[in-house]
Parts: sequence; structure tokens; C-alpha cells
Amino acid sequence: MVEIRRYLHQHPELSFHETETAKYIASFYDELDIPYETNVGGNGVIATLKGGKPGKTIALRADFDALPIQDEKDVPYKSKVPGVMHACGHDGHTSTLLVLAKVMKRCQEDLPGTIVFLHQHAEEYAPGGAKPIVDSGAIDHVDAIFGTHLWATTPLGVMQTSKDVFMAGADRFEITIQGQGGHGAYPHETKDAIVIGSQLVSQLQQIVSRRLDPLQTAVVTVGVFEAGETFNVIADKARLIGTVRYLDIEIQKEIIHEMEKIIKGVCLSHEADYKFNYEKGYPPLVNHAKEAEVVLEASRQVKEIHTAEEVIPVMGGEDFAYYTMKKPGAYFFTGAHKEGNPYPHHHPKFDIDERALPIAAKTLIEAYFAYQSQ
Amino acid sequence: MVEIRRYLHQHPELSFHETETAKYIASFYDELDIPYETNVGGNGVIATLKGGKPGKTIALRADFDALPIQDEKDVPYKSKVPGVMHACGHDGHTSTLLVLAKVMKRCQEDLPGTIVFLHQHAEEYAPGGAKPIVDSGAIDHVDAIFGTHLWATTPLGVMQTSKDVFMAGADRFEITIQGQGGHGAYPHETKDAIVIGSQLVSQLQQIVSRRLDPLQTAVVTVGVFEAGETFNVIADKARLIGTVRYLDIEIQKEIIHEMEKIIKGVCLSHEADYKFNYEKGYPPLVNHAKEAEVVLEASRQVKEIHTAEEVIPVMGGEDFAYYTMKKPGAYFFTGAHKEGNPYPHHHPKFDIDERALPIAAKTLIEAYFAYQSQ
Amino acid sequence: MVEIRRYLHQHPELSFHETETAKYIASFYDELDIPYETNVGGNGVIATLKGGKPGKTIALRADFDALPIQDEKDVPYKSKVPGVMHACGHDGHTSTLLVLAKVMKRCQEDLPGTIVFLHQHAEEYAPGGAKPIVDSGAIDHVDAIFGTHLWATTPLGVMQTSKDVFMAGADRFEITIQGQGGHGAYPHETKDAIVIGSQLVSQLQQIVSRRLDPLQTAVVTVGVFEAGETFNVIADKARLIGTVRYLDIEIQKEIIHEMEKIIKGVCLSHEADYKFNYEKGYPPLVNHAKEAEVVLEASRQVKEIHTAEEVIPVMGGEDFAYYTMKKPGAYFFTGAHKEGNPYPHHHPKFDIDERALPIAAKTLIEAYFAYQSQ
Amino acid sequence: MVEIRRYLHQHPELSFHETETAKYIASFYDELDIPYETNVGGNGVIATLKGGKPGKTIALRADFDALPIQDEKDVPYKSKVPGVMHACGHDGHTSTLLVLAKVMKRCQEDLPGTIVFLHQHAEEYAPGGAKPIVDSGAIDHVDAIFGTHLWATTPLGVMQTSKDVFMAGADRFEITIQGQGGHGAYPHETKDAIVIGSQLVSQLQQIVSRRLDPLQTAVVTVGVFEAGETFNVIADKARLIGTVRYLDIEIQKEIIHEMEKIIKGVCLSHEADYKFNYEKGYPPLVNHAKEAEVVLEASRQVKEIHTAEEVIPVMGGEDFAYYTMKKPGAYFFTGAHKEGNPYPHHHPKFDIDERALPIAAKTLIEAYFAYQSQ
Repeated sequence: MVEIRRYLHQHPELSFHETETAKYIASFYDELDIPYETNVGGNGVIATLKGGKPGKTIALRADFDALPIQDEKDVPYKSKVPGVMHACGHDGHTSTLLVLAKVMKRCQEDLPGTIVFLHQHAEEYAPGGAKPIVDSGAIDHVDAIFGTHLWATTPLGVMQTSKDVFMAGADRFEITIQGQGGHGAYPHETKDAIVIGSQLVSQLQQIVSRRLDPLQTAVVTVGVFEAGETFNVIADKARLIGTVRYLDIEIQKEIIHEMEKIIKGVCLSHEADYKFNYEKGYPPLVNHAKEAEVVLEASRQVKEIHTAEEVIPVMGGEDFAYYTMKKPGAYFFTGAHKEGNPYPHHHPKFDIDERALPIAAKTLIEAYFAYQSQ
Repeated sequence: MVEIRRYLHQHPELSFHETETAKYIASFYDELDIPYETNVGGNGVIATLKGGKPGKTIALRADFDALPIQDEKDVPYKSKVPGVMHACGHDGHTSTLLVLAKVMKRCQEDLPGTIVFLHQHAEEYAPGGAKPIVDSGAIDHVDAIFGTHLWATTPLGVMQTSKDVFMAGADRFEITIQGQGGHGAYPHETKDAIVIGSQLVSQLQQIVSRRLDPLQTAVVTVGVFEAGETFNVIADKARLIGTVRYLDIEIQKEIIHEMEKIIKGVCLSHEADYKFNYEKGYPPLVNHAKEAEVVLEASRQVKEIHTAEEVIPVMGGEDFAYYTMKKPGAYFFTGAHKEGNPYPHHHPKFDIDERALPIAAKTLIEAYFAYQSQ
Repeated sequence: MVEIRRYLHQHPELSFHETETAKYIASFYDELDIPYETNVGGNGVIATLKGGKPGKTIALRADFDALPIQDEKDVPYKSKVPGVMHACGHDGHTSTLLVLAKVMKRCQEDLPGTIVFLHQHAEEYAPGGAKPIVDSGAIDHVDAIFGTHLWATTPLGVMQTSKDVFMAGADRFEITIQGQGGHGAYPHETKDAIVIGSQLVSQLQQIVSRRLDPLQTAVVTVGVFEAGETFNVIADKARLIGTVRYLDIEIQKEIIHEMEKIIKGVCLSHEADYKFNYEKGYPPLVNHAKEAEVVLEASRQVKEIHTAEEVIPVMGGEDFAYYTMKKPGAYFFTGAHKEGNPYPHHHPKFDIDERALPIAAKTLIEAYFAYQSQ
Repeated sequence: MVEIRRYLHQHPELSFHETETAKYIASFYDELDIPYETNVGGNGVIATLKGGKPGKTIALRADFDALPIQDEKDVPYKSKVPGVMHACGHDGHTSTLLVLAKVMKRCQEDLPGTIVFLHQHAEEYAPGGAKPIVDSGAIDHVDAIFGTHLWATTPLGVMQTSKDVFMAGADRFEITIQGQGGHGAYPHETKDAIVIGSQLVSQLQQIVSRRLDPLQTAVVTVGVFEAGETFNVIADKARLIGTVRYLDIEIQKEIIHEMEKIIKGVCLSHEADYKFNYEKGYPPLVNHAKEAEVVLEASRQVKEIHTAEEVIPVMGGEDFAYYTMKKPGAYFFTGAHKEGNPYPHHHPKFDIDERALPIAAKTLIEAYFAYQSQ
């Protein structure tokens, strides 16, 4: 399991470009002699292990894309691709599911029901891989779906889930300010896109602090600010790219409305033009109460898990949301904190404790079995 | 002259990397059989035409580097180098001086004094080429120096100069803010470098408006704001690169002091770190009164010039400043506005009226002759 | 009840200065011949009606101070005191409790237990009246305490409460920036306190949006910005006065810490001095689950109440918090929205539907009776 | 002279309310038996001393209003009026002129020409007293006009003037932002006028730094920021009052245009309303070259003046501008710096060295005599 994870860790691929990883997964199932489909909803790979005994069809999902982050860890299994990195643990998800398939293949005859090994591409970048997979009909025949995320900020031995909203809605926006460039010494002949963009960033901070109900939960983050090419030329254009998080669809509407007002006003005050492109991303991930209960129960069967707990919503987005909008299901976190490594997901030094991999596998398969008897 | 200019326009080279242009110039003097030195203070080329009659030694200077700007003009002589462009007219300066050399070579015997054709590299990027050329002793034997800039915002037929400060001091600064990155949904675990940088940009605007004597002249421009790589990751680092312009060395000191205070305070309020790198660039270019008078007089001998005027200082920097700190001299603008092209220097669509080239040449040589009789 | 309320509405008194209102209340009990104490913890008045039958001692609380707001309503019972107004409904609370006392006095003999009519001064202005009343020992002998707020944004017939945190912690802060004044035409000789204060206001917005966990609830409001005396003099001093709201004591600590960082950094960037005075106000008001259940049950006995609901926390602060820190108790809202009047509490045109007064009274007394049988 | 100055210093009156000071002046001329007119263009007092010999009619002007500043000096002649102070030296101007009148009265017979003692009210507050005085025709018969300002930041013995623009244009503006108030804990139901106003203050800083030609001179100062009444109520309204200074009428137009754009944009981004009231104040004060030369010459006759110099424009406004728009004239500064007192004009601790008073008087009368022989 560790070997596979480290191999994948060294060969990360960006969302929607994970063709080599998909081939790697497919060849793994080839060797196992488990039938599979490729190019499901994009680069998705779905293998199906039909057990010898009757039972429910249950999908277990693992995502396999990486992030545009430079790996700054000093480890032998460091990413070999400059600027690309498995900084979110999807390599671990994939290796977990692959090894689980290998193990279950051995006991196929005694297996009740059918396991759908759902390898999903493109979780990190909206519109993501889950939606086209759902739209392709790939889970129409499934009774339920479970999935887990290795979670670096949760201690090893802890499992977390929720019976309701578990993860936030996550959108992407891009604002392009079109000012007017010119020589750095003649500001009055220009509309300085960096000054305009800076004001925008500052003013966007007021959406959460002043314009939304303080009891609601929201985040507006500008992750990229790009403007200008040389020190003595005033930039004519600035690009601000960011993300919005929310737990309630009404709040999403309000945020979009307030962003529009702010962008319009700030640009007007400079007579600058703008484009505002708001891409609605993953909706909030809502677990089903019964399936979450199954996962909680299952985790109690895993001896390495000493704590199974319900938690408040996590602000990260996750396109597992589309699965539970379609079918019963639950998503959970498998604690994977690596001692001495304080770095969170999406950090250049992110890493996980690999002992979490078998724990994730065990919890998934215990949930599978537990659900068979529901 | 136009042919040479257009050739150079299509083959621009960035400051300090103008090796091919230097070779081109050198081979031109080879053909003219005028002796020259290469690698003067870097990529500088200095040719010397000793006249048959006694007289003063006078340098005429032309710079030949280009800018990191993508040429967006739709003309046959458009830059062939992606992202590099003669967006300031130095191609014209060079062709002017070369053709002037060719013409003067023909009448070498009757020429009083010595013409030093000073082809300077790297005017666009501090520390520039003029300083090392001066430091190399290359103008130690020179009695005076003259130079001109083709000026796109001044009409054809107009010549402009000053008897005192003619162009501003121009510095470059780079501020790197080191915050703390993280997932876009967890701002409270980060120090958002984009938010910090935006505040900095806004607050830097107060230096000119609040912290300097309103009767003084200064510009603080941030030309580049670079931060973040992906929309849902909070940037840990932001780079602000910009320029400062001033006419008085005391104001330069105050600006640096105020920038430091602002950067320190803003970063402290976020517990972020920073690096502030301030590179003093060209000092203000101060013309000598007598030499400016010579240029004004000379321009009256050029029939295409209908207006020769003294103007208030121009905010752009120019390392010709180093020459007039060392020797008597004067710098002037040759009007080169191209009808229908409203774009200023350093603009992707910058261009000049090529009829200005011979005007520049004539004014320079008239100044040479006029100065001989001083 | 309406008559008393309107009388009080016309004669509002500011927090800690409610001497006439206290006298009015006292004389009311005089007439009823119910014993009372005055000057309890300040201007508080506590009357005690010992019933003829045994039972628990239960306090019912009403506050009676007003706000420094100019009454802009156009009604006959408009405030007669310029700049002072019952813009929060405390006049209604008081009249409710007084009339309740009058009614209960009539059936004193049959009354089980003891009713403590707790008229509290100074709810609007921290440190408030509740704390000194509690400290005075005035509720030491009480078994439980109930209270209600007429709530203008809740419809008539609706009652709202919570079994846990019901209202936010509410603090007051005052920031005095000491810059350096001077003539309006010479900004460079000054440290402009208005510019500094404005930056502070903008940057304080980032506490909620960037520096606190988005799942937590907090508000940082600057309610007063006072600086400068004349248009052409740069202000040397600015006063910012505001409030902080929170639901969790850890968040309060973080907010204070972040405010300090921001103020320090902003002032440092201007070399200005400051005073930061943070007055911890009322802690979050936490209802006791059992007592809240009693109130919910009681409200079902009141025929005018068609909806009794548990709600999420309200961000307003309320020093009823001190009572439930000392004794079992619950606080609830009595819907009092006046048709056609959209103005919230603390608005110059705030008003209530007076039909809510008897509803409040009935709910309180039903809770009293219900609690007797617990 | 000192006695009169100190008396006036203790009895300051605000612009347009200087009735007692006007009476004081009038009674002084009564005693001297010099004819005068009162209520000239408001509270102005003009006395006329016709000499026994023929000559030109020359006005000498002194202003006499005070400022709304609390006197914080610790001196016996401290202001007796709370919140009102002669913080600009007009008390000294008046006493200078009065004593000069007393002295000249004695030698009336030998006096060539006519001295017009022009005591002007309301210099500190636009539209000022000079304009109505000019409009009243009071200087129609005058050949020239001179005036001086005791200048606390210029050393004793120094006299300063200019042959062109000497003082800036000075305007007053008032911006009222109409947001929407409400409870401090519910920002999302409001439009926070303090947040809006703060943004405006920050953004107004960009006019000078980004939107005007850096070679031009301008100041935009917000001197008053008033918003909110109580800490826990979000302010519905904010008042920003300030001043604009400029040397060129075109720049005034640009500033107004840019202010409008900024206010409109910022308010739009909050859906707030505003009123923007821009009162054009005193135009730039332009000295006449010949009259300035007379003053320079005159000052060389005053032995206490060791330095008479031409200076760059001063940013303060001065309604003496209206006189030189109508008649030849010049204005100058009489150095009046008080050792050990570093406070500038309009500062609560402003003071002057009283030895400057006779110097001012001598320079004025020398200019009078010198001009007679022009």
C-alpha cells in the first residue's frame, strides 16, 4: 500500500490530466483480473467485483488527481514533477482502494454483494470528476456509496464524520480588471490596475465581516493576484482568482450579489472595466444520517481507531457531494496526522502518516459489510 | 536610417543582454573603417572619429537596449522576439547615430575636433550602462556630451530641453511579503500574503499624498504584484515590484524612510515577515545651462524644427544623468509623435514617426559644431 | 399596561441615570402595598410577593433603561427627552412586570411560592445592572429566574428561546489614536489621525473575515468615529468606539489579540501613539436546558402564542447572562413586530406592537406556575 | 503693540462673528480721530488717513478673525474664550496696523498720498471677508495694496515673498454619507457609514498620488470625520469635512472630478447615498511682480530684517488673493518664529515672537513710501 502510494506521490498529475495515473490503475485491475471501465466521465476508472453471494451493490470511492504546488518536502518519495504535487493525500486514497481490491479479490467467492471500486479523477478543480461520473449513469445501479479522506490535521486513530452537512460548498471566481497601462512615472495618464485590485481585495474582506449574517458561515479567499510585468510600467490589467466557501445555498447567492456590487463600485471609482466570472463549484457535501451511522458503527470494528466522532462542518469543498445528492452515502475522515509535520493540506510540505492507509481500507470495508446487513 | 531602425526593431534585446546588437553596431563601424572599442562598461561600443582639424572632443550618445514588453503593433517591422520590444525608441537612437557616423566619415578631413560615438547598452534597467561606462574612464578625455531621446508624446518639429533638472531620479524596489500559506477555506490558519500586499499597495499611496511636502515631486508606483498559484490555496508569499521617481535627493531619502515604516507596520499587524530591497537607480538628470543653451541654439539651425522650448522636468529616469555629473552636457527630446498612434513610451503599441530620425541627427551634429566655437 | 408603557416611553432615562424611572416603579409598588427594596446594585428595584401557599421562589426580571438615540417616530407617545429614547422595548418590559404584579397581588393568598419582581437598571451599557444586582446577593435565595425581551423583528404570536447559548457576549472598546495635528495644507508635517483611523476601521474588518475560524461567530463593529474640529486643520486625535460580539470565550480572547496586533501595526506605520481600552461586557447568555423547556411548555398555555420555537443564537448581548451564570433560568423573546414598522431595535423609528405586552406577561406567569410543579 | 495684541489674543472671535473686535478697532480710530467705515462687506472696518501731500492711495490690510481651536498654551494672555483661539496671528496683524495708524496720524501733514487701513474680517473661513469687501467697491479707488502675515515657521528677521504664485487656492468640501443604521451586532442588516467613510478617506489619498500630474501641486485633506453616537449602534451617517489646496485652476477641476468619481464608486459598492458639497474657496494668491519688488526693496530699509527672499509657493490659502485679482499688490511673510515654540499655525499651542510686530509695521510703511515714488 505504501509502495503504491509513494509511486503515485512521485508521479502526480493535475486535475483532468491524470491519464498516466488512470492507466496505472487500469493495469492494476488487469493484473487482478477484475473487470473495469475506463474514461468514465473523463479519466475515471470503475472496477466491479461481484461477490459469490447475494447482497447490495456498494461503491467505494477514491480520487486520484494532484495539485499545482511545488513539493518542498525532503523525502525520498518527493514529487518528480516540478510544480505538481499530491498535497492532499489522493495518492493515499488510490493506493488504499487498490490494495483493498487486491485483498477482496482473494475472497471473492465468499463476498456478499458487489463492490464498485470508483476511482475518480479531478476532485481538486471544479467542475470536477464526480458530476460527469454521476451524469454518465455509473452509479445508477449502486445502493450506497462510501468514501474517505486521509486527514492530516486529525490524529491517527481518530475517525470523523457528520450526520448532516459535512463539507462546505466551494466555488471559484476570477476577476479581471482592465485599467489603462503606461509609464510608471506618469500615473495620472493611467488607471493603475494594481491599485484597483488591491482595493478590491481589501473591500472583499467586508463581505464576511459586514454583509453576511454573522451566524452564517462563509469564506471569500483571493488565492491569486497577478498583475504587471515590469517594475516601471503601470499595469493595465490585474487578475484576481479565488474561492468562496459556504454551507447554505442562500448565502452563496448573497455572496455573489455583494461581490458584484463591490467590483462594480470599485471599478467605477476608477473608470476601469472588469470581467467577473463566478464558477459555481461543488455544493455542500451532505451526508445521509443512516449511512453516517453505518460508518460510525463500522469504525468501532477497526481496532486502530480509538475515537469515532461527529464533527462540525469542514470548510473545504469535496465533489463527493454529487454522489450523496444521487444516492445514500456517507463520507468520513481517516486521521492521518504525521508526527512532527505541522503542515496542512495544500501546503508545499504536506505529508501523511502512512499507517493511516490500512485504517482507511479497514473502515471502508467494515462499512461495506455493515451496510450489507442493513 | 529607417532601414537600420526597422532591422533593430525586429531584433530587440533586453538590457544587459544586447550582445547581438553590439555586434551589429561594431560591424557597422568596421565597414565605415572608424575605430571603436567594444565591451565598454559591459556591452557598450564607442567609436571615435578624429577630424582633420583641431577642436574639442565631444561625445554623442545613443542607447540600444529594449524592454520586456510584447509588441502588439500590426506593422511589418514588428518585433520578432516574443515578449521583447523596442518600446522606447532606442532602436531609433542607434540608427540615428550610426547614419550620422556614416555621413561624418565622408567629411572627416574637414571636421574640426573629435566625435565620440557613444553607443550605450542597458539604459532601461538600473544600474544601467552609463555608470560603468563613466567608471571605465571612457569619457574622461571628452569635453562635453550631448544626447537625445525620440519622444513619442512630443509633436514632430518640436525640440525640448531644460537648463536645470530635466529628468527625474528613478529607483527600483522589490518587497517580498512572507506570510503563511494554507487551504483557501481556512484563512484563520494562515497569514494571507495577498491581503497583506493589497494593504501595502493602498498604504504606499499615502507617501506622496500625506507624507511628502506637496511642493515636492515624487511618484511611487507598484508595477508588479505577483502572488499565489491556485485559486483555493492562500498565498504564503507576495512580490511587489515598483519604481520611485523624484527630483531631489532629500526626497529620495524620505521616501525610503516612509516606505520602510509602512512595510514594517503593515507586516507587523499580520505578524508577517518581509524583505525590502531598494535599488537606487539613476539620479535626476541635470543639464548644464551653457550646454543646454548650445542645444537650443543648434536646434534653430534645423529647418524641420519649428519650436525649441524649455520644459518642466519629465518624471522618467535616464542614466544620461551620470554623464552630466561627470562632464558638461545636455540632453534633449526630439519630437517623434506618430499621427494616429496615441500610445506612450513603454506601451505594447508604442511607435514613432521615423521622420524624426534625421531631425535628431541634425540637431546633434549642429550642437557639435556650435560647441566647437564656444 | 399600554398606558404605563407609553408614560415610560415619553420619559426615558439613560443607563445608570434611571432615577426617576426607579421612583416611578417604587411608587407603583407602594400603591400595591407590595414590599420592595430600592437601590439594589444601583438603581435596581426588587419587589417581593410572598404567596399564601408554599412553593419555590422565582424571579421575573424586567430592565428599564433607555438609549442615547433621538426618537424619530411620529406618534403621540414619542419621547419627550431630546436624544434619549426607549428604542429597545424596556419600557414594555417594565409595564408588563408592573401590571403582572398588580394582577398577582389580587390572588396573593392562593399563590404558591414567592414571586420576585426584579426591575433592573442599566442593561444597555456595560458593566450593566445585572452584575451588581447578582453581587449584592439579591438573587441568592431565588430558585430560578425567567425573563423576556419584546422582540420587534419576531412576529406577534411567536415565542423564541434556546436550550443553550441564546445571546452573544458583548464587549465595548475604545481606541484613541494620537497622531500629530497641523495645518490642512501641510500634511507632511503631521500624522493625520483621520487617515490612520480610517485604515484601522478597514483593517479591523479582516478579523472576522480572515483571522477567525469561519465556523465561529463574531462581530467587530466601530459605532463611533470622532476626529477633527475644523475642515482645514489636520486632526491630531481620533476616537473609535465600538462593540465586539461572540459566542465563545476563546474567540473573545483571539479578537482582543488580533485587535491589538492591528492597532499596533497600523499606528507603527505612522509612528502614531494609541490607547486601546477594551471593556469586557456581558458574557454570552446561556439558558439552562430544563428551564428553557419550562418556558416552551408554558408558552403553549398562552392562547395568543401560535408558535414556540428554539432558535439559533442572537448576536445582541444581554446581561441576563449573569443571572443564569448564578441560578437556573431561561430567557426568551416575545414576538412584538408592529405591522408596517420595519425598524429594528436601536433604530430611531423603533416601535413595538403593544398587544405583545399581555402575551409577555402571560408567558412569564405560566412559566412561574409550570416551574412550581417541577 | 504687544498690549493690543495680547488683549485681542484673550478675546478671539470666530470668522463672521467678530463684532466685538470690529467695535474695538472702530473705537481705536475714534480715539485717533481718523475717519472710518464699519460693516464693510460684513464686519470689515476701513479707516482712511489722507496725507497732507499728494500721492497714491495705498491700502494696507490686516485680518482679525480667530479659529475654533482650544488654546493650550500656558501663558498669561491665553484665550479667555473656550474653544476659540487666535492660532494664526491675526491678533498681531491687527495690532500692527492699529499702532501704525497711531504713528502715522502724528505725521499726517507731511504724509504723501493716502493710507487705507483695511481691517478685514473672516479670513479663516470661506467665502471669507476679502471678496465682499472688494465687491463693495471699497478698494476701487486704491492704487495698490500690501499685506503681511506673521509667520511662525519663518525666523525673526526674515521676510519672504514671491513675484508670482505665493499662496495656494484653498477650497472646502463636505461629504455626507447616508448608509443605514442598526444594531451593532447585525451588520448585515445595515450599511455601515463608518466603514464606507473610512474607505473614502483611504481612497481620496490616491487623488494626489495617482490621479494628478506629479509635477503639479495639490493637497486633499479630510479634517473632520464625524459618525455615530453610541458604541453598539451602527452609524447610518458619516460626515467628512476637508480642504483642497492647489496652485493651478485646471488642477482644481481635476480634483473635483476625481473626488466625484471616488465618492460615487465607493458609495455604489455599498448601495449608500451621499451628498457632496464642494465650496470653492480662495483662489491662488498671485503677487504682482513690480509690487513684490517694491516690498523686497522696502524690507531692505528695515534694519531688523537681515534676509529678504523669494520663496516657492506656500500651500495655505489666503483671501488676499481677491485684492491682487483686482488691484496691483503684494503679500509677504514677516518671520515671527518664537524660540522654543515649535508649533505651526492652527496648532493649539501656536504662538509668535512679538518682536515681529514692529518689523511687520515698518516693512508695510516702507513699502508704502517706496511705492509713492514708483
